[in-house]
Amino acid sequence: MSAIKSFKELSDHLKSQSIRKKMAVANPVDDHSIEAVMHAVDEGIVEAYLVGDADIINKKLEGQKNIAFTHVIDVKDPQEACVEAVKMVKFGKCDFLMKGLVNTDVILRVVLNKEFGLLPKGRVMTYCSILNIPGYHKLAIFTDPAVIPAPSKEQRIEMIKYAISTAQRFGIEKPNVALLHATEKPNPKIAFMQDYVDIVEMWKNGEFGKDCVIDGPMDVFIAMDKERGGIKNVPSPILGEADVLMFPDFQSANCFYKGLVSFGGAGMAGMLQGTEKPVVLNSRSDSAECKFYSICMAALLA
Amino acid sequence: MSAIKSFKELSDHLKSQSIRKKMAVANPVDDHSIEAVMHAVDEGIVEAYLVGDADIINKKLEGQKNIAFTHVIDVKDPQEACVEAVKMVKFGKCDFLMKGLVNTDVILRVVLNKEFGLLPKGRVMTYCSILNIPGYHKLAIFTDPAVIPAPSKEQRIEMIKYAISTAQRFGIEKPNVALLHATEKPNPKIAFMQDYVDIVEMWKNGEFGKDCVIDGPMDVFIAMDKERGGIKNVPSPILGEADVLMFPDFQSANCFYKGLVSFGGAGMAGMLQGTEKPVVLNSRSDSAECKFYSICMAALLA
Repeated sequence: MSAIKSFKELSDHLKSQSIRKKMAVANPVDDHSIEAVMHAVDEGIVEAYLVGDADIINKKLEGQKNIAFTHVIDVKDPQEACVEAVKMVKFGKCDFLMKGLVNTDVILRVVLNKEFGLLPKGRVMTYCSILNIPGYHKLAIFTDPAVIPAPSKEQRIEMIKYAISTAQRFGIEKPNVALLHATEKPNPKIAFMQDYVDIVEMWKNGEFGKDCVIDGPMDVFIAMDKERGGIKNVPSPILGEADVLMFPDFQSANCFYKGLVSFGGAGMAGMLQGTEKPVVLNSRSDSAECKFYSICMAALLA
Repeated sequence: MSAIKSFKELSDHLKSQSIRKKMAVANPVDDHSIEAVMHAVDEGIVEAYLVGDADIINKKLEGQKNIAFTHVIDVKDPQEACVEAVKMVKFGKCDFLMKGLVNTDVILRVVLNKEFGLLPKGRVMTYCSILNIPGYHKLAIFTDPAVIPAPSKEQRIEMIKYAISTAQRFGIEKPNVALLHATEKPNPKIAFMQDYVDIVEMWKNGEFGKDCVIDGPMDVFIAMDKERGGIKNVPSPILGEADVLMFPDFQSANCFYKGLVSFGGAGMAGMLQGTEKPVVLNSRSDSAECKFYSICMAALLA
């Protein structure tokens, strides 16, 4: 498999596979959710299990052409619908979970419940996203814009491992992981700087395996912009070729991606990681494209 | 004066004024510095006092057409050149300072010296930048991508006051100041969140004057993107119309602007604030355009 370098290549790749991944959707009783689900169904990427009020869902499905790949499970109460959808993933009926019209904290409570939840004890739960930036020659996998405000070293190590594994599933054999900061100079006054230094040291000692490169601290120019980053003459094996961006904190990841979505024409996809199976948590403010590619990302990784 | 909405409008405005601001340049013995200086001289924006090795500087000035507006002060030693240039600003011969080929920490030590330095005792020194983003309908003044890693509340208050005053010098009568975060929800676990809440309260009590609007926390979408920010239905008087962006920390400001410079076609200008007079600290990796517009910014504010 050659590396997937854009969202277009991602959906083309999934379409070329003759497997539909099974997706459990919790309470898709709104037009936005149904639209995103049916887009992925129509493209041949998923088979959808729609858990919610069957009267509402069936009405919304009227006129859809690929209804054969949708299954409606009638559960009137939204929270109960979350429970049912999570169980379908937990017990192997479905490959991944997607949130419909339900508050994020409601579904997360079910995902995190001890009895039949999706997060194994002791695992770090984080959010991993992908940016498809028209001006960048590959996808930028980045972590974490939404869940962990200020990761500890232990959390960063897990986040990097998830992201490397994600990159490899995208066909990137030896992903370049950039530990981002405002500058390439390690400033000892900044809390996470020693974590960065330690993580690079761990990588040198082989603790992340042989099939990745980890370097930092470095700025966005060195990580992603050969021309501007090159002027500084900082010797980095990553220069302009980052596949994975580890951000200092979730504010910096969040501001970075929203700037590029609004003003750089970038597309964005994302999902929870650390859970046994992918969890797609689209929000109402995400674009239809973002929702579709988040489903694609989960379908590839599931 | 109508509001300046782009870098083009900034240089046009300065060219339309018949005053050249006087700029002291510390050690401009490299092509990059001379090029940036002469661009601003040729546009009629500044008169330049070039402090450094006269043999080198005069050679580099050969063939320049507006040599009448340049003055070479012969100081062979780079650090001594900084001292002389700072003194020219301190004692009123020049309106602002610009760094040539000298390390930032060397010139900063001179700027900060107690005897003839440019930072009044007790003043907060910070970095204020401007992004000219093709997709945004106005300039985005933002703080701080470079100097204060994690501002305290007191520092934030000063940074906001500087930025408001900067916006007003750009003709923005009532600037909108967005206190940025990953989301609009104030998360009490995050250190600076209470500072944001307090600052909005101070604004409501009139402590920032009547001629500004301060709101937050909010994300980049709410601050700068009416369409995407509007979907959330968060009632903000700023929605999509931020003039000033206060970032959570310098990493987020830094990642944001570098992303947009590399992939959003954005231009960038910046200078130190808090000093008696503007200080332009271009680095070698800044583009010629960035250097020119930083000089323009300083010339407007000096």
